[in-house]
Amino acid sequence: MRVRNVKNKEEIINNSLYTIINHSEYKGNWKKVFNNNNPIYLEIGMGKGTFILENAKLNPNINYIGIEKNGSVLSYAIKKIEEYQLNNLKLICFDANRIDEIFDKDIDLLYLNFSDPWPKNRHEKRRLTSPAFLKKYDSIFKKDRMIEMKTDNQGLFEYSLITLTNNNYKILDISLDLTNKIDFENIRTEYEEKYILKNNRIYYLKAIKTC
Amino acid sequence: MRVRNVKNKEEIINNSLYTIINHSEYKGNWKKVFNNNNPIYLEIGMGKGTFILENAKLNPNINYIGIEKNGSVLSYAIKKIEEYQLNNLKLICFDANRIDEIFDKDIDLLYLNFSDPWPKNRHEKRRLTSPAFLKKYDSIFKKDRMIEMKTDNQGLFEYSLITLTNNNYKILDISLDLTNKIDFENIRTEYEEKYILKNNRIYYLKAIKTC
Repeated sequence: MRVRNVKNKEEIINNSLYTIINHSEYKGNWKKVFNNNNPIYLEIGMGKGTFILENAKLNPNINYIGIEKNGSVLSYAIKKIEEYQLNNLKLICFDANRIDEIFDKDIDLLYLNFSDPWPKNRHEKRRLTSPAFLKKYDSIFKKDRMIEMKTDNQGLFEYSLITLTNNNYKILDISLDLTNKIDFENIRTEYEEKYILKNNRIYYLKAIKTC
Repeated sequence: MRVRNVKNKEEIINNSLYTIINHSEYKGNWKKVFNNNNPIYLEIGMGKGTFILENAKLNPNINYIGIEKNGSVLSYAIKKIEEYQLNNLKLICFDANRIDEIFDKDIDLLYLNFSDPWPKNRHEKRRLTSPAFLKKYDSIFKKDRMIEMKTDNQGLFEYSLITLTNNNYKILDISLDLTNKIDFENIRTEYEEKYILKNNRIYYLKAIKTC
């Protein structure tokens, strides 16, 4: 997500009650952050945070953690989220490459929304559904590995169906046109709103790998 | 496939050198029909036969069997195919429901092209990728189960991705827009030609379940 550089982003991130700075301290014990045993849903690449904010507002009995590596983008999200008082939402400025350094059997569900498709073959490893990333995710899940993904990128979606199933994930639910899916309560991301206006198809899947 | 009733369809089917009438005799021993050990690829619902005919012409070292339950449709196919002399193609007038009665460890690959989507829930069992059908296919394959599927029906494709992966198939290749897939030698079926003219998207997958 391209945004203007926010000069005081570090100040915003360090001073917000929503952000967790000493993240590695909680590895294996994230329920302490929320002070309850509710499930924890993680979004990697949360961008400006609309999706995770709306989810947190709707589902007080689920805890949400959003990760965003771009500090400026995260600052925008923080400004928006600070208008609300939510006990079930925390944010981290962090690179997903090192996801297994801060979580250990903490997560119940992982959201990957409109991740960078990295279409060039030589960048395959950077895709958030590459075999290398799927391996990293293995240790972050409490029990069953559960991933929900949305994208408008056909290539990334096709690629992900191959890597997920070859890494023993099964498809629980799928839509090749999410905008017109019936009986589905979809919370849109900022990208999604933009792509729907462009008439792009939105692809969705929910996959599980049982222990 | 709706076609006019062919009055002498039984005569056409019974007299063609391409059709196998005493099919249950060959159960477990279909290589005898072809008199070689080449792989055997099966198409269920071959319709008017363009796909299987073009494949058989292109790949003399692969044996093809086409199944079609509608005798009139099969008669059209026979008339077309009889213009050629092919040793690697056989046709059967048969209902896929009883597929496990005529094959036993004979098949290397199964094609399901533009199968009837049976969109109503109460007809789910009739879909050729229902769990009941996937179970039937298990015994027909020589070794690894390999299925290639094409359809323009979004609902059937989504459904099949769920049933296939939940029955331990992995996706080897997939396209959500086959007509524009690069580096893919696609042989079109009669339905496919029609749907492309209507600008329908064609979905494709290749799935494998290893032994």
